[in-house]
Amino acid sequence: MRGKMTNFRFSVANAGIKQTKRPDIALIVAHPPARWAGFFTTNAVKAAPVVLGMERLKKGVPLAAILVNSGNANACVGERGTRDTLELCREVADLLEVPEDQVLMASTGVIGQPLPVEKMKRVLPGLVEQSGSATLKEFATAIMTTDRYPKWEEAQLDAYPGVTLAGVVKGAGMIRPDMATMLGFFFMNAGLSASDLEALGRGAVRDSFNRITVDGDQSTNDTVLVLDNGDGTQSASNAENVKRAVSSELKRMMRSLSEKIVDNGEGVSKVVTVLVEGARKERDAEQVARCVANSPLVKTAFYGQDPNWGRVMAAVGYSGVEVAPERVDIYLDKVCLVKGGCEAGGDAERRAADVMKRRAFTLRIDLGDGQGKFWLITSDLSVEYIKINADYRS
Amino acid sequence: MRGKMTNFRFSVANAGIKQTKRPDIALIVAHPPARWAGFFTTNAVKAAPVVLGMERLKKGVPLAAILVNSGNANACVGERGTRDTLELCREVADLLEVPEDQVLMASTGVIGQPLPVEKMKRVLPGLVEQSGSATLKEFATAIMTTDRYPKWEEAQLDAYPGVTLAGVVKGAGMIRPDMATMLGFFFMNAGLSASDLEALGRGAVRDSFNRITVDGDQSTNDTVLVLDNGDGTQSASNAENVKRAVSSELKRMMRSLSEKIVDNGEGVSKVVTVLVEGARKERDAEQVARCVANSPLVKTAFYGQDPNWGRVMAAVGYSGVEVAPERVDIYLDKVCLVKGGCEAGGDAERRAADVMKRRAFTLRIDLGDGQGKFWLITSDLSVEYIKINADYRS
Repeated sequence: MRGKMTNFRFSVANAGIKQTKRPDIALIVAHPPARWAGFFTTNAVKAAPVVLGMERLKKGVPLAAILVNSGNANACVGERGTRDTLELCREVADLLEVPEDQVLMASTGVIGQPLPVEKMKRVLPGLVEQSGSATLKEFATAIMTTDRYPKWEEAQLDAYPGVTLAGVVKGAGMIRPDMATMLGFFFMNAGLSASDLEALGRGAVRDSFNRITVDGDQSTNDTVLVLDNGDGTQSASNAENVKRAVSSELKRMMRSLSEKIVDNGEGVSKVVTVLVEGARKERDAEQVARCVANSPLVKTAFYGQDPNWGRVMAAVGYSGVEVAPERVDIYLDKVCLVKGGCEAGGDAERRAADVMKRRAFTLRIDLGDGQGKFWLITSDLSVEYIKINADYRS
Repeated sequence: MRGKMTNFRFSVANAGIKQTKRPDIALIVAHPPARWAGFFTTNAVKAAPVVLGMERLKKGVPLAAILVNSGNANACVGERGTRDTLELCREVADLLEVPEDQVLMASTGVIGQPLPVEKMKRVLPGLVEQSGSATLKEFATAIMTTDRYPKWEEAQLDAYPGVTLAGVVKGAGMIRPDMATMLGFFFMNAGLSASDLEALGRGAVRDSFNRITVDGDQSTNDTVLVLDNGDGTQSASNAENVKRAVSSELKRMMRSLSEKIVDNGEGVSKVVTVLVEGARKERDAEQVARCVANSPLVKTAFYGQDPNWGRVMAAVGYSGVEVAPERVDIYLDKVCLVKGGCEAGGDAERRAADVMKRRAFTLRIDLGDGQGKFWLITSDLSVEYIKINADYRS
């Protein structure tokens, strides 16, 4: 990030939130303060920083800084969660000499334990002083929980080389015991308004982070922020073109990073795109896709590399969508496994088993009933998943 | 069953449907033909015998016999499934000299493979000849798939010693790869009408088999049949009393057998009652209970014996029901783990961990919002579950 996009500056530190010696706290400073959009978990149980973020988003003030910590979700700790969040934001605001409501927090980690506020306050002056000293990769690494590798991307628009985008996410697909899942931060200097960021971001989040599922469990802390502090000096007609180019690049970047979240999950050995076509409505296709993608039996078959289409048919059947079993076709990549609700025959099972040896493949289900389609990305359910999630804390 | 309830007669045989030498086919003969009620899977993908059962139920004819096989679900095989079912029912009807539509089939086993009809037809004369030669336990054993033990019960009504009930179920909780789940048969001589059986059975099924969940996957073959061929010689006022007593006993029996289905599942090490109270409506309580009971993270915590209440809070939060996290209390048996949405403190976690060492316990969630409540029974999600379901067929 250094050099390329100096208008967002990163620094990291070890505040002792986790037991390790690795950085567990990071600061993003937007210079100048950025217009922004935010997308938050729809879980009714929300972490304190999520509630504050939603409030400050409504106010329409720019963002000068975001304090991010791993190791503690600051969720389910009552009133104290809000007090701690406000105190830390105020402290950062004072050090940066910006208004208090221009600072946000984002947290990820164990649910139900209060933040170690004093420890965290001690490293804030250093984080502010060192602002700009960390690379995007170092920032991405500091906010990891059970992630196997840091996840970030940066890009310049081909047609507008002065416009740069960068994105960082954390999220381990397989959620660890108390770990709260995904955070995403996207930075640009495209000169877009807050309402543009909201519209672009909403579409891109819908087609990326909202289309991945690992265990169907939804976290208390999910947050995606999209920031822009470019000066927007383009002419009006050019601005429209830039917006279109940014939208396309943001979609690509979020899609790519969301796949990495599934791929890097502990215990994941398969990354499977579930594509449902031929539904009467897109909504029906989504319902079937989510049902299949979250079925423990289907996911266990992915793990076992077993083209067990009976399980897929059963999951399609209990999705709640009216389907005609005799019109259902099922494919694994290009191999037709089921035709008209029955086994396709020949050596289809053997060839499908070969497809399933790959790390990534597509399970395509054609309901033969209309034009509605939907896709999402899921993982297998593995012995390692159970071990990781059962053994933690014990 | 012999001696006690000679009006239902059982026989079993090995037709070679499975690879083993154990019985895999069984015949129930009702003598005289019985009034009956049937409850079938709501899965849109239904096995052929389920479709036939639903049709014959509508006709209102009595049942003279049920042919039951394990090892093959007769599901997802197209038109052939219906033809095979009809042919086998006709054959049994001819041998018994009863009308064809008084015979049903129930199948459980692998999805997607045609029934070995010729093999099955060969054993039918013997099954009819030997009718009455098998005990209830032998019948319960013949219809098992991955069940670890046969499940049956019989009872006499205390107040009406002449009235006897018996029930047999199969279902391994943890569903094996292609195995289609649960079958249940209930027999009595209480003299009830078909519409009484429907009303009593519906309530009892709702409070038993519809309240167990293992992996949230629903089968193509689930069938519960309730049969009565008693002569109903009681006086009118007595008949009402008998009906009440039968209803109560049938509920108890179904509840007990449904718990056994969860308990005997392969890979199950915990049987957990999830009880949600304090919801605004029963419907809300049910939604929260199903969400918690099917959460892979919560179920993995059961397996790990980890009182991981953050996962429970998160699942309550994403259930879709409007909840006030600050009013939520969570208990494991009598140990209060969460009070007002926060950790209860003290040594609650340690004491809760002790509770979780038991094979069976209750997770109680009080939403603090009203009088609505709902319970259901779930299992843990274990390493053994994944191994069983991934390794089969491979």
